[in-house]
Amino acid sequence: MPHEIQRARAHELLQKHGVARALFANFANVKWLTGFAPPIQTGPSPFLGGPPMVWYENDAWTLVVLDWHAPYADSFGAQPNCRVETYQGYALERSPRGAAELRSTLQRVMGKTFAGKIGVELRDTPADIALSLRETGRVEFVALDARLDALRQIKTPEELSKLRANFRLTDVGHAAARAAVKAGAREIDVWNAAHYAIERTAGQRVPLGNDCVVGYRQANSGGAPLDYEIRAGDSVIVDLSTILYGYWSDSCATYYAGEPSARQRAMHQTTERALEFGAALLKPGAVARDIDAQLREFMRRAGYPIYPHHTGHSLGVTAHEAPRLAPHDETILQENMVVMLEPGIYFPGETGVRLEDALRLTRDGAERLTAHDKGLP
Amino acid sequence: MPHEIQRARAHELLQKHGVARALFANFANVKWLTGFAPPIQTGPSPFLGGPPMVWYENDAWTLVVLDWHAPYADSFGAQPNCRVETYQGYALERSPRGAAELRSTLQRVMGKTFAGKIGVELRDTPADIALSLRETGRVEFVALDARLDALRQIKTPEELSKLRANFRLTDVGHAAARAAVKAGAREIDVWNAAHYAIERTAGQRVPLGNDCVVGYRQANSGGAPLDYEIRAGDSVIVDLSTILYGYWSDSCATYYAGEPSARQRAMHQTTERALEFGAALLKPGAVARDIDAQLREFMRRAGYPIYPHHTGHSLGVTAHEAPRLAPHDETILQENMVVMLEPGIYFPGETGVRLEDALRLTRDGAERLTAHDKGLP
Repeated sequence: MPHEIQRARAHELLQKHGVARALFANFANVKWLTGFAPPIQTGPSPFLGGPPMVWYENDAWTLVVLDWHAPYADSFGAQPNCRVETYQGYALERSPRGAAELRSTLQRVMGKTFAGKIGVELRDTPADIALSLRETGRVEFVALDARLDALRQIKTPEELSKLRANFRLTDVGHAAARAAVKAGAREIDVWNAAHYAIERTAGQRVPLGNDCVVGYRQANSGGAPLDYEIRAGDSVIVDLSTILYGYWSDSCATYYAGEPSARQRAMHQTTERALEFGAALLKPGAVARDIDAQLREFMRRAGYPIYPHHTGHSLGVTAHEAPRLAPHDETILQENMVVMLEPGIYFPGETGVRLEDALRLTRDGAERLTAHDKGLP
Repeated sequence: MPHEIQRARAHELLQKHGVARALFANFANVKWLTGFAPPIQTGPSPFLGGPPMVWYENDAWTLVVLDWHAPYADSFGAQPNCRVETYQGYALERSPRGAAELRSTLQRVMGKTFAGKIGVELRDTPADIALSLRETGRVEFVALDARLDALRQIKTPEELSKLRANFRLTDVGHAAARAAVKAGAREIDVWNAAHYAIERTAGQRVPLGNDCVVGYRQANSGGAPLDYEIRAGDSVIVDLSTILYGYWSDSCATYYAGEPSARQRAMHQTTERALEFGAALLKPGAVARDIDAQLREFMRRAGYPIYPHHTGHSLGVTAHEAPRLAPHDETILQENMVVMLEPGIYFPGETGVRLEDALRLTRDGAERLTAHDKGLP
């Protein structure tokens, strides 16, 4: 059943804390609990009265969303113990009052007779909703913020299937980007070629994130594509994340307009080797920050400046989540975590390279989820 | 000065209500007060600790944003009485703690010594922030939700210039969409052609909103493009909104794969006349709902089913705002309001037409801001 495992994990957590009622308002967690995946390319709908919210009561789940967003919650509502309640965002007959409609719908869903502990994502719940709950004088808030983060780390088979669909799209995007990198094209043209190919393949709109930057930019490790023109011999870092079914992918390659120089080729090959080295380290039991440290040491020994960013990170309902391959993260890797590896070498204002793959932790190693060409001709 | 007029209007309103301190958390209002326009194509950044917020204290303004978003607030920070404070979203040395960083930055910005009235957008302020303010026991909340809406209706010269830049892009998008509508193409291909042309022209990423639907869809008045194939003789409604500088445009045309039928041609021409009729009604002093009623009557007399949606609406920092040309809206139009007109005729599952222009109210009439071809060959 869609996202059933996620709710079972959350239910177990809430029971452990003696929380029989809870209100979820964090967009990522609402997606994770329900599979709800509304369109986001232009930001929130102007008719929204607040974030989509989930009310939990003794393992019965209610998702409250804008009426126009109900189609994106269909499969959730079809499950036992799960229902979708919608509120009206706009009607011809009166001024839009999504905020009031959401609040009265929520009140109806939650009921008025309970007292005692109630779990609340206080950082994402609108203040007025929490204040009116508090004013009943009978509830005690248990802050749930970030409490689901650890549960989100192990991907379910259903999540892996959503992620795989996304990684197929980044593969398609990279092939188109590679073909578009040539002298005279601009960053935005390369980006457009990738985005066009991805949406053409998906047969629908697909939000596309991250970077497309030419090597001679001063800040050449990342940034949105602009109208910088690519010249013969330039490197272009293309880092693509798609969002399909509410889940993110990620991926990076570096392409060259014509032949890379000997220096670029050496940088690229070293980064390829770093990626292979990192992939070989990924297995259950490995510690996130140790892998980070080993890849940095690899770059240092190769004689290159060490990249200023993390070595990698996980993803899912957001672009970037724990575990992170970074000095602070002591997470012990487990089967079915998904980890990005993204070593790079940057000479600001001159040239740069970054290569990134996604890997799923298996029982004794890691399986590559990305299959894009990394760019060396 | 950037968005100076907006802040002057808000300051006047707050003074009138005896509010010397205020916290703004509504994304649209934060954009309107400051000009802050972060990228949104993939939804909120995973490192955000909450919405961008504005603290107001006796006409001194502070915008609090994620460190990575500071470049999108540059011009605001350069103004007298305005400053930008950033909080750290991610650092290699520790787990991301944007929420905690935002809250401590906000506390520092607001100070701790005040008591009395404080204006708060309670629907958009995170609950924990409001609760900790309330717990000081010394503040009285004045709900500011939707209080800026009326002030946003009259566009400033600076806003009109941002809107014009957006409408130039929708013109470009429509020309490309028109060329792409042909038998064998799919909705998503038409959409891609428009989006590609817009971003190529802008030289940067531009979020693109709204509809691209072929006439034989059952719900054929709107919807995101999918892989429906266009056949000879089909109509395709293309409704485009771009977002540049944080401001929205809007626009619609209807294109045909080959020659429209006599019935389609008659529908199209009637809708063109409805649009002209509506444009002639737009002048200061006219009442929003009267224009709506007159256009519906126009369609009724022409013998067509009356469109199920509003006749039009305003826009700005959101896609859709008051005044609305709809039965509920009694707003009296004024100079420098910007109003969309979008009459349509729909036969579900068969064919449909909608045409939409943007008009700025002038001293004694209205100036068209859109210049796209409406689609009749």
